[in-house]
Amino acid sequence: MSEKTAVTPAGHTTPPAKFSHGVRKGNLLQVAGQVAFGPAVEGRAPAPVGPGLREQTIQTLRNVQAVLEEGGATWEDAMMVRVYLTDTSHFAEFNAVYDEFFADLRQPPSARTTVYVGLPAGLLVEIDALAVLD
Amino acid sequence: MSEKTAVTPAGHTTPPAKFSHGVRKGNLLQVAGQVAFGPAVEGRAPAPVGPGLREQTIQTLRNVQAVLEEGGATWEDAMMVRVYLTDTSHFAEFNAVYDEFFADLRQPPSARTTVYVGLPAGLLVEIDALAVLD
Amino acid sequence: MSEKTAVTPAGHTTPPAKFSHGVRKGNLLQVAGQVAFGPAVEGRAPAPVGPGLREQTIQTLRNVQAVLEEGGATWEDAMMVRVYLTDTSHFAEFNAVYDEFFADLRQPPSARTTVYVGLPAGLLVEIDALAVLD
Repeated sequence: MSEKTAVTPAGHTTPPAKFSHGVRKGNLLQVAGQVAFGPAVEGRAPAPVGPGLREQTIQTLRNVQAVLEEGGATWEDAMMVRVYLTDTSHFAEFNAVYDEFFADLRQPPSARTTVYVGLPAGLLVEIDALAVLD
Repeated sequence: MSEKTAVTPAGHTTPPAKFSHGVRKGNLLQVAGQVAFGPAVEGRAPAPVGPGLREQTIQTLRNVQAVLEEGGATWEDAMMVRVYLTDTSHFAEFNAVYDEFFADLRQPPSARTTVYVGLPAGLLVEIDALAVLD
Repeated sequence: MSEKTAVTPAGHTTPPAKFSHGVRKGNLLQVAGQVAFGPAVEGRAPAPVGPGLREQTIQTLRNVQAVLEEGGATWEDAMMVRVYLTDTSHFAEFNAVYDEFFADLRQPPSARTTVYVGLPAGLLVEIDALAVLD
């Protein structure tokens, strides 16, 4: 009945394995774990923007947003945001950036879980999201 | 069609950033990562109950349950419980408390994933849940 | 309206606590975190197959697949795969095995998040999945 479709924003780097940046089926849109990679550049390996947490957080959220939008959703449709940080000392700064980013949200913000894990060298944050479309 | 609503139990501490303790849209209810904070006390920072794993686990499960109930669900509706512990040596005790907590469940228990991560100082466990309402 | 049912493949080891290997309700199928345990053997504690990442990854994916199939789904229905590795140096080899495993997928692959966490001794990978059935 409802088709499963891959959701791939134009500028996104190619995933390092056989997975989709986003998948939509019915009214569910799942966004894969996004990191702070800037737009894909042919012939260059993906690289995170700036070394700082603020830049990486904003770029990561933008990358999630690009998948949401490509799938026909917005942050207003997000049910859950999963945040993976690498250092508990980053929590306060991360939250400050997060709150700025979502300052204009009109609907209730999504739920969120934040935990501290290991990530590949150079990455300070990874974020995925689940959205339910109207 | 289906509205997105925030689910906020009365006694819960205010989230440290722009996210909801729970979100419901359609028949999906997503509970944000809960920790062992006791009821909010005005003018005091949120603090976990007792230092031990048993107390923290029970309080964390109660906090998840409060969101489920505020959203019109119960544990019987839970599809997935995500458990974040900080030490693999806690697994056996955690499971014992978990099984006690769910001793009276009438429907099949939810699925579960348990991994070991970093959490803010003083916290031994974080749990989130996804429920599908009838 | 839609019943919640436990999904338990025949050969799977008994979960170490009160949770289900899979749960289906409506068109949602949630697979619990699977590890590289081989088929259950009466009287023996669950043990992972082989010590290597390749063997563990294949067995873990097979265990997820068994739950999907027992619940009436296939990998084609998977929306999200959550991968928990223990060492960032495993990423490339894991991806190679992952891509082999999914070489024949006809629909868009699921979304995926990969993070690095602690797991019980001997386990190198844990994977869970969310599927939406037609």
